[in-house]
Amino acid sequence: MKERVVSGMRPTGRLHIGHFHGVLENWIRIQDQMECFFFVADWHSLTTEYADTAAIRDNIREMVLDWVAFGLDPEKTVVFRQSLVPHHAELNLILSMITPVSWLERNPTFKEMLDNIQQRDLSTFGFLGYPVLMAADIILYKATRVPVGQDQLPHLEITREIARRFNHLYGQVFPEPAALLTETPKLLGLDGRKMSKSYNNSIYLSDTAEETEKKIKSMMTDPARMRRSDAGDPEVCVAFNLHRIYVPQEQQDEIVPACRNASIGCVECKKILAKYLNERLAPFRAKRVELTQKSDFVDNLLHNGSKRASVISDAVMAEARAALKL
Amino acid sequence: MKERVVSGMRPTGRLHIGHFHGVLENWIRIQDQMECFFFVADWHSLTTEYADTAAIRDNIREMVLDWVAFGLDPEKTVVFRQSLVPHHAELNLILSMITPVSWLERNPTFKEMLDNIQQRDLSTFGFLGYPVLMAADIILYKATRVPVGQDQLPHLEITREIARRFNHLYGQVFPEPAALLTETPKLLGLDGRKMSKSYNNSIYLSDTAEETEKKIKSMMTDPARMRRSDAGDPEVCVAFNLHRIYVPQEQQDEIVPACRNASIGCVECKKILAKYLNERLAPFRAKRVELTQKSDFVDNLLHNGSKRASVISDAVMAEARAALKL
Ligand code: SF4
Ligand code: SF4
Repeated sequence: MKERVVSGMRPTGRLHIGHFHGVLENWIRIQDQMECFFFVADWHSLTTEYADTAAIRDNIREMVLDWVAFGLDPEKTVVFRQSLVPHHAELNLILSMITPVSWLERNPTFKEMLDNIQQRDLSTFGFLGYPVLMAADIILYKATRVPVGQDQLPHLEITREIARRFNHLYGQVFPEPAALLTETPKLLGLDGRKMSKSYNNSIYLSDTAEETEKKIKSMMTDPARMRRSDAGDPEVCVAFNLHRIYVPQEQQDEIVPACRNASIGCVECKKILAKYLNERLAPFRAKRVELTQKSDFVDNLLHNGSKRASVISDAVMAEARAALKL
Repeated sequence: MKERVVSGMRPTGRLHIGHFHGVLENWIRIQDQMECFFFVADWHSLTTEYADTAAIRDNIREMVLDWVAFGLDPEKTVVFRQSLVPHHAELNLILSMITPVSWLERNPTFKEMLDNIQQRDLSTFGFLGYPVLMAADIILYKATRVPVGQDQLPHLEITREIARRFNHLYGQVFPEPAALLTETPKLLGLDGRKMSKSYNNSIYLSDTAEETEKKIKSMMTDPARMRRSDAGDPEVCVAFNLHRIYVPQEQQDEIVPACRNASIGCVECKKILAKYLNERLAPFRAKRVELTQKSDFVDNLLHNGSKRASVISDAVMAEARAALKL
């Protein structure tokens, strides 16, 4: 039996290359090996964005255009939108009845996020309960695998505990999904901090080649290399974290010593990076432009995908309701 | 414009006469004056009964038979089952995102119930959030009125606050429902405690006349009246709390002095009560027996009612989603 994978992304809008290498590339790789359900987690985005929902629709569109243009295949996988499959809300409600509050309060990310994002009033009931909604999202499709990074293992553990508790109370319905551990390299942004939309330091998948080149031109390098004649160190060069991904190994092997003896300048070095990065993304970007022309493309895709998802979720909910004797 | 009323009852099974005079009679009165939505709160019952759901289906059937046999008219009102209208779960999820945990924790009933029912593990996420689900139940139909007792006003206030918050964040969608204050006389059971299923001291609507007479025979009277020759006091007589409801005023006016001078005995006095009580309930009980014969009566009624409810809830959810920009 094929493993079944469920994974979602909050609709944050256009994806940057950090998202691509961190999550999307991984989705694209497993879509050929496993039965995959990938969804736009729009209800989840309300846990933090409830006060400003104006951008959600656009964000969904931009994100899904990136998904498909960069390789997610809606023929091979079920690509859908959470809020179009109301079973997520129904199972969330049922699971909320069997989930102790203490499981949620001890969730490490809960405390961390509360500390980090203090400017918003995040202590809502829904925010506290997002691991319950996450559990519903996953077990609603009887997922056997969930792609997670090391830091998300505690969440998956709550999902597994909730599934176990349901099965214990009402009889075996849900498999306990196992982790599909993924490495998520943390890309540095233009300013040397983690690449993130909110830092305004990102290279977007949908940037043009020109925009990309301009951004890379402004990117930090080795902060100690003040003048062209100073020797540099690729190990501490911000730009070089992208060379590692985009520039062929043999060319990297030339750059490293050239940087160390100042025989190459940063301007030239970053031009090489921009060239390879743009070359790598060019065919996807062209496809994205093409998809953008079709006005209903994303809406249709999500509606069709959500219908396909509902076929599965409908059957699983019927089973869950029967177990619950409701 | 007619007021719109929404109210639900947890499926606790057969109703006793305390339920009838406390809630059901009130529903029956307002069904002629207002547009009413009365529902079986089966999801709510999971907040406390999640560990033992075996009885829910039977409890639903018995309760709805009582509703209809004793006067609720499914032609005049929409009688439905919460879990058959998944919009309740969807709106619950959305409202959870805008409801501060602190509103729920300060809910007086929350602490009280946690204290009272310590034998069950009630500190679940769903239990904490039941005022959110209640708010969803009510505003999903744009109710303008909610029948509540004085002690439930804090809950209704949370509903109003949640509706206000939604409107403030996303634009005016939901009316703030006002209280329809109802007096809920607390009937004493056979043993002098509050009539309650869990005390095993109840007279059920569906009891036969014989069962009723036998129960009343065993009912506590004035505890100080040990012998037939002792004078009694109807003011402290447990049985007399039912005389007040069922025995005509003029006959009560004869009993009171007769009890005080011991010219009537408790056996005879309670026979009078049993006679009037049984006479009052007889036509309803006969109707109940009749309804019980039709095997699919309750299922059909709830399915039809839930379809009618869904027509309204569907339109309101569409409006809510549009306001949310989802
Ligand atoms: S030459 Fe290249 S690797 Fe060296 S500091 Fe400049 S950008 Fe970085
Ligand atoms: S005579 Fe009637 S009212 Fe008086 S104590 Fe007996 S039951 Fe109660």
